[in-house]
Amino acid sequence: MKNLMIAQSGGPTVAINSTLAGIVERALTGGEIPHVYGARFGIKGLLNDDVIEIGGMLSDPDALKRLIHTPSSALGSCRVKLGGPDTAAREYETILRTLEKYDIGYFIYIGGNDSMDTVAKLSDYIKDKGIQGLSIMGAPKTIDNDLCGMDHSPGFGSAAKYIATTFTELWCDCGVYDIPAVTIVEVMGRHVGWLTASAALANTGEEGAPQLIYLPEIAFEKEKFIADVRRELARNPAVLIAVSEGIHYADGTFVSEGENTVTDVFGHKYLSGAARVLEDMVRTEIGCKARSIDLSLMQRCAGHLAASNDLTEAKLLGATALDRALKGESGKVSVITRISDSPYRVKYETVCAKEIANKEKAIPREWINAEGNFITEEMYTYLRPLVHGHFGNHSGDNSLPRHYH
Amino acid sequence: MKNLMIAQSGGPTVAINSTLAGIVERALTGGEIPHVYGARFGIKGLLNDDVIEIGGMLSDPDALKRLIHTPSSALGSCRVKLGGPDTAAREYETILRTLEKYDIGYFIYIGGNDSMDTVAKLSDYIKDKGIQGLSIMGAPKTIDNDLCGMDHSPGFGSAAKYIATTFTELWCDCGVYDIPAVTIVEVMGRHVGWLTASAALANTGEEGAPQLIYLPEIAFEKEKFIADVRRELARNPAVLIAVSEGIHYADGTFVSEGENTVTDVFGHKYLSGAARVLEDMVRTEIGCKARSIDLSLMQRCAGHLAASNDLTEAKLLGATALDRALKGESGKVSVITRISDSPYRVKYETVCAKEIANKEKAIPREWINAEGNFITEEMYTYLRPLVHGHFGNHSGDNSLPRHYH
Repeated sequence: MKNLMIAQSGGPTVAINSTLAGIVERALTGGEIPHVYGARFGIKGLLNDDVIEIGGMLSDPDALKRLIHTPSSALGSCRVKLGGPDTAAREYETILRTLEKYDIGYFIYIGGNDSMDTVAKLSDYIKDKGIQGLSIMGAPKTIDNDLCGMDHSPGFGSAAKYIATTFTELWCDCGVYDIPAVTIVEVMGRHVGWLTASAALANTGEEGAPQLIYLPEIAFEKEKFIADVRRELARNPAVLIAVSEGIHYADGTFVSEGENTVTDVFGHKYLSGAARVLEDMVRTEIGCKARSIDLSLMQRCAGHLAASNDLTEAKLLGATALDRALKGESGKVSVITRISDSPYRVKYETVCAKEIANKEKAIPREWINAEGNFITEEMYTYLRPLVHGHFGNHSGDNSLPRHYH
Repeated sequence: MKNLMIAQSGGPTVAINSTLAGIVERALTGGEIPHVYGARFGIKGLLNDDVIEIGGMLSDPDALKRLIHTPSSALGSCRVKLGGPDTAAREYETILRTLEKYDIGYFIYIGGNDSMDTVAKLSDYIKDKGIQGLSIMGAPKTIDNDLCGMDHSPGFGSAAKYIATTFTELWCDCGVYDIPAVTIVEVMGRHVGWLTASAALANTGEEGAPQLIYLPEIAFEKEKFIADVRRELARNPAVLIAVSEGIHYADGTFVSEGENTVTDVFGHKYLSGAARVLEDMVRTEIGCKARSIDLSLMQRCAGHLAASNDLTEAKLLGATALDRALKGESGKVSVITRISDSPYRVKYETVCAKEIANKEKAIPREWINAEGNFITEEMYTYLRPLVHGHFGNHSGDNSLPRHYH
């Protein structure tokens, strides 16, 4: 009987701890696994032998329940990019030594497409070395919803619910004075616009908002943008706009470029300020009141607005990853496949980590309107079930959430 | 039998529509008032004869219920400052003409200290002119909690709940990577720090956060700030800080000064960017990862996090204002007086509008610690009941809030 190691990686989400809880639940109930360990700060925990026993702690039902509705990564995270075995042989050996030390038979890495690259590389390495009895599995997470091979990724639905809810409220605030005012809200999303598009859920028709949505999937044109805003101002003095951080011009230049050129370890440009640039455009070109809002970290950690559909799916994806590892799979990632929209039905499967690693899923062109400034009904159909269900994590005294620490 | 006119003014809150609903409920049930009118965009509605009948619409119980949990000002708001009768005689006459046109016996103005100035001036004018049968009353609102003459102002508790909840979640996110990181969150508050102080509710003791709070009540010192942050970083690599937009140096210069010097019609400097300035200080002086977050409009419109204590009190203050007007009072404002902290008990009274107009209530010095960088237990005792109770405004399908429009 071998032990289980779990780690979490990449940017936090509201659902990543629910996936951790799902894995632990499956381990606690199956009877096949003596010890459950957590590597702290992602793969760094294996590189530095920073490992804690978590099966015991989480055998407390109240702790397990609190973990499910605690946002962010309880085990800590990292943004370490593991090189290939040719360039980083020593790191692979260190990781294997740590896994051996704790007598690990199953390592499950919860993360995004960079982490699924680690899953693919590690499982290949183990296979190439002829090592037996060690399964490496991935469980997906990302608020960006950019992972291939699955209907949607856990964490997205809750972030989308936060964004859509916030837009319904900002819309109440936007029209309060009788002067033309343009409010531009920046949403996370470097290369794909799923999160930004989810703001459309706040617009339920006639005189709804946001009226305009700008996504990285469509090349941004300043003249078109100003014309769009002028047209909307003529209809309603309050205009609310959702914009992805990663909108760019046809030549690939980010709209926010020049403001911030910090690069993270994966080589991604760290962006901020697209909404601020648009705010300045509106003020200069149209001359009306304009303001920008950045939803910042709140969109990825607003656990009090978690969609219960999302948390439930995230948990079952964790359980699926371990279950399939116990059945002998390795180098695979658990995924959600949608069976039907209405009623909403899904199934849980696994796909090769290589199908997911280093790829990004953009919004299909036909789910964006012809003008390139809003979404279509197909996209609404896709989004609606994902934000469903209010979880509620208020503490017993009904005032603030109580998290797992 | 005379009619009722209601208007809303100043910055939106989550509770201002609950006050409107409380006035309307009292009018609908008392049998003394034939028609209930709303002036649109505050006092501007009376100046421009922009008036709608609202008693009929709100006799629909579902609409009334939705209004209570809809953030912002359903009637619209304004930031018009009414001059004295000597300089603005024509405006006073126009207002009276409009009130006369709709056969108004009771005008209730919901707003902050500038609006209470309008209530005081208008009621004095009416008295001076010897006009009979027209009562002018105020009902308070402001997220800032800076109104004198009352324990706290409606709208504050819900904003405080949003802020404290958000800090509990940001704290989960802050410590996710194993590198020193300082996160500075800017909270509204030009001259008083009540809202910023409410972030402390997220810190429930040992290893809690925010660890540091900077308020406009205490002169800001850069060296002291940097020393505070260094000390906290030595204890925990993740440091979370709450800062008021209006923090300033001993000479009165705003920390954000230079970044933004726009002035509103009341002569208030429009500030933003104190957290951004502090972020730059940390990066330059300490050299670790630093970021700033602005809670922006969300802190005043997050209806989904409304404190039910706040909404209930706001409603009863509305009812109180009308009830006392019907009993012959004028030039008064309805207020909450706290009878006891535990159990939390309040009573509803009225005070002269002049006691409230143009004044600001700061946090008592003894409710801030000696270091000037956190709050004391007295402040916790004051704050706790105000964020109590989860209202919940999710729609029937359990996904997004459904607001009154």
